[in-house]
This record gives sequence, structure tokens and C-alpha cells, in this order.
Amino acid sequence: MNIGIDMMGGDFAPLEAVKGLQQYILQQNNAAVNIFCIGEATTIHSLLDEHAVASPLLHVVHAPEVIGYHEHPTKALKEKTNSSIAVGFQLLASGKIDAFISAGNTGAMLVGAMFSIKALEGVIRPTIATITPQMSGNISLLVDVGLNADCKPEHLNQFALLGSLYAKHILGVENPRIGLVNVGAEEGKGNMLAQATYPLLKNNKSIHFIGNIEGRDFFTNKADVMVCDGFTGNVVLKLAESVYDIAQFRGIENDSYFQRFHYENYGGTPVLGVAKPVIIGHGISNAKAFCNMLLLAEKMVASDVCGKIKDCFSAL
Amino acid sequence: MNIGIDMMGGDFAPLEAVKGLQQYILQQNNAAVNIFCIGEATTIHSLLDEHAVASPLLHVVHAPEVIGYHEHPTKALKEKTNSSIAVGFQLLASGKIDAFISAGNTGAMLVGAMFSIKALEGVIRPTIATITPQMSGNISLLVDVGLNADCKPEHLNQFALLGSLYAKHILGVENPRIGLVNVGAEEGKGNMLAQATYPLLKNNKSIHFIGNIEGRDFFTNKADVMVCDGFTGNVVLKLAESVYDIAQFRGIENDSYFQRFHYENYGGTPVLGVAKPVIIGHGISNAKAFCNMLLLAEKMVASDVCGKIKDCFSAL
Repeated sequence: MNIGIDMMGGDFAPLEAVKGLQQYILQQNNAAVNIFCIGEATTIHSLLDEHAVASPLLHVVHAPEVIGYHEHPTKALKEKTNSSIAVGFQLLASGKIDAFISAGNTGAMLVGAMFSIKALEGVIRPTIATITPQMSGNISLLVDVGLNADCKPEHLNQFALLGSLYAKHILGVENPRIGLVNVGAEEGKGNMLAQATYPLLKNNKSIHFIGNIEGRDFFTNKADVMVCDGFTGNVVLKLAESVYDIAQFRGIENDSYFQRFHYENYGGTPVLGVAKPVIIGHGISNAKAFCNMLLLAEKMVASDVCGKIKDCFSAL
Repeated sequence: MNIGIDMMGGDFAPLEAVKGLQQYILQQNNAAVNIFCIGEATTIHSLLDEHAVASPLLHVVHAPEVIGYHEHPTKALKEKTNSSIAVGFQLLASGKIDAFISAGNTGAMLVGAMFSIKALEGVIRPTIATITPQMSGNISLLVDVGLNADCKPEHLNQFALLGSLYAKHILGVENPRIGLVNVGAEEGKGNMLAQATYPLLKNNKSIHFIGNIEGRDFFTNKADVMVCDGFTGNVVLKLAESVYDIAQFRGIENDSYFQRFHYENYGGTPVLGVAKPVIIGHGISNAKAFCNMLLLAEKMVASDVCGKIKDCFSAL
């Protein structure tokens, strides 16, 4: 297995990326996982030396350019073909790596995912998901969290299936319970999108739909996968992340439950519905976040979740 | 001043409504405020006696019928003309009371507000707002929180003005900062609704627009009024309420900040853009919630916020 990681993406890269690699190597002992560190080679080599990060499984791939946060995604990817993100997608598309991770320009990551490795056949719109910590101890998935701000019912119906397959193969949930994010419990409630989506989910034989869930149900283990448009999902994601800020403000950030709201424990946001594993990190990713993204990438490759999604969609 | 309160609305009515009245009378000493207690007279009288709630300012108005939670709002209001909600709106429409409070059937309250006392001239869609506790200590307003699940840009533009006037006259904020709930900070971000709303808010000379706010900004005192469609707002409102549940789950519900997320401190949800003050309570309203709704009603009447909204919209 070969995993590629953009060493230059994120506010605290490449230092935190190197530290994340160090954490990953310490806890991971699978000799079959090669890590390709993509970025400015001299900088990466010197940081790896400085932090005594060494392993025969580490390979540095030189990519001298960096796509900045405020660059236009499509334009930057086209012009900066030697940037770490562009090189990562070239390696992914050519099969030299099996998964690609970056905490860099989110737009460029999404454009790269859609145009270098492409959406799977039958998938109208790829999506991005995040995990949410449930009070019961387990985790649920929220999808879409910002890739598709405007959605149609058929998009949400597909997000439900994509989320269901991810929950099954990555989160280990048998027969995941799918909930539609809505403003009331009963069928018929909601805006036009939710009203039109409900019957599609209800009649979707590939998922286990349990009905509507409301804002108060995000952390109460009511559903394993919570489906909504990317506008609502992004607002909820950022609000949920701010719960950790509130805890910090009150001096209780070490509470084991509030800890779980810290972005670093998420392990990045997977892009679902594309041919290969792509994981997008938070701009402020620290060592732990990078380490968790590497672990998630390994899991996504090992479980062949993308292949399973492909099979499921082509059988529909 | 005459305030009407539905004694029969809410899961714990009429008992908690009576206890709320008791709390209100103990802390309020304005001899000019008459309270009209609307509901089944015998029940109310006996509860008032039992709890020794007595004041020459209390008046019981007999309304033998009750509109249940699951009744169809329009149908119930039409058929149950002797219900506490129907009687409340009759009194409000005829001018016998100046404000009406109920924790009963929300739909019936909204239908009553729109059809008995009507939207103010120029207001396309009345809205409902809730307050959100800021970490800085002050409070902000979130609007719409569920009345209008599907919105157009011109609706959001009006919600901004309605919220601004409410923040000024009820929350005491001079020149309230208006933020558009969105998925990114920059202009141009968002779904089609947010993208189209941004320029309207930017060019609205009657408000002080400060740009987009994201999910992480709900409690960071970035804006005094946060504007969104009622679907997003309702999801956020219920998620924010669940922050108190999380605190309770972790045994820190007595933390002074988390306390502020408890619905009972909200004092109910005002309907904005209608001719007279209408306040809708949470279905689980307890004594404190009823007391806070009475205090809010008093403030809304004393400040003549509805008259000020009327003047502002007719001058546009």
C-alpha cells in the first residue's frame, strides 16, 4: 500500500506534517505501508533529519511549488503542475499512490479529486463527510458538510448511500441508520428539499432510513449517518467544532467528551464518491491531525471502501 | 397595559403557568400591568388559590377548549373558537390585551398571529427569532428560526431589518451588527440564497451589515443579529439548545455559561413583523420560562417595538 501526503499544506506545515508522520510511524507497524512525502525535498529532508524521523518506508517526492489558500483552485492546479497538490493527484491518477492526503487549499483538493481521479460511475455529485461524537460513545457521520451548498433530492439520496457505505466499511457500523436532517420529526416537515428527499430515502432499498432527525439529535445517537445539503452541514460542522471552543472558554476542554469535538481527532474529511481515497485536512491541522489522517487513509485503502462504493453504484 | 397568557398551553400547563405567574408577580411591581389568564376558569382559579397567587391585577378569562399539539392549526382555530389560543387572539385583535403569550400549538399561534392580527404593511413574511448566549456575556439574535423554511433573498433582507429593530428596542443594542449566516467569510460564498442575499444586505441602508458569519461564530459576539433561512435557523436553534443537554450529560449544567443555553432563560420566541406582540413558548415551558415570557411581553409592549417596526417599514 502506498499513501501520499502533501507535506506543504496547512497553516503549520511542513513542521506539523513531519511530527504527524513521526507519531504515525511510532504507532503503526505495518511494513507494507509506504508513505510518499510530497513537497519541497530539501525542506522535508532537513525536517525529517532534525526530528529523527527515519524509516525505509518513507519516500520524499520533490514538488517545489505550493498552492496558497487564496488561490483559485482550477487555475492554480493548471498552472502549478509542480505543486504538492498537483503532484499528489498525478501520483494518485497514475496508480503510484493509493490514497492522497492534504491540509492545503480545500478547493484545489476538491477540483483535483473530481477531475484527476473523477467521480465514480453513477455518482451525480461526490460529497464530503465528517464524524460527530455521540454522547453514547460511538460516532456518527454527517454528510454533506460543504461540498454541495445547493442540492437536489437525488443528491441527498446518493449522499445517504455513500454515507451508509462509509459508515459500514470505515466506522464498522452494520446496517447504518440513516436520518434526514430536518426541522421536525414527522414526514412532510421541512423545506422543499427535505420534503422531496424524504420519500426518496424511504423508498431507497439500499439504505436503512429511520426518518427525520432534528438539531437536538446530532449527538444523541439517533442516527449513524445524518444527511443534509452542504450549506446546512457546513454550518452544523463549524458550530459543532465551536463546542470545543466553548469548553475551552469554560476551562473544561479536557473533559473526555468535549475533547472529542476537537478537530484534530477527526482525522480529516474524506471525499466520497470518487474513485480513490482522498482526505482533506483542516487548515490548522497539527501533528495529531496529520497522524489521524494517515491512519484513516490506511483504513480506507485496506477496506477498499472506494471499490465497494463503485460496486454498489454500478449494481443500482 | 394588558397582557394575555394562555394558561393551558405547554406540556406542564396549567400548573407551571400558574407558578410562572407567581414568580412574575413577586418580581414585578408595576401596578399598571394587568394579566389576563386565559383557559378553563375553574381549573385556573383552583390552582391560583392552591398556590396563593393573588393580585388585583390578575383576571381569569374562561376558555373551555384546548388546541392539542397535533391538531391542524387552521382547522383547530376555526373550529375551537372557545379555545385558549383562539380567545387570546380575539382579545388581542379587539385591543382588550396588548400582547399574547402561549406555549401551546406553535402552528396555531403562528396562524393566529398572521390571520387575526396580521403582518404589518410592507412585511412580506413575518419571522421568529431566538436569542443566543455569547461568550462575551451579551446576547445575539438568530432569525429566522423556523417559521419560513424556504426563503428568498428579499425575505432575508427583511428579517435583517426586523431583527435589527428588535435588537435595538428590546435587547438595547445601538446600531446592531447584522451578519449573514454562511459557509465562508468572503462575499460570493454560499448557496444560491446566501449569494443573492449578500448584495441586498450590503446595500440596505437601514441596517449595519458586517458580512458573513460562519457556524463557528454563533457564540463569539461577531454579530448582534444573525440572519438565515428558517430551515438552517431551526437546525441551529435546536443544536444550540442541545449544548445544554451535553453540559447536563457531563454534569456541568450549573456552569454559568452553559446555563444560558437552557431554553427557560430565553423567555419565548417573539413573532416579528406582525402588528402586536405575540410570544410563543417552548412546549416544555416551566415556571421560569412562563415568568420570562411575561417579562418579555411587558418589555415589548412598553417599548412599542411593533409600532417602531411599523413606522420603519412604512417609511421605506
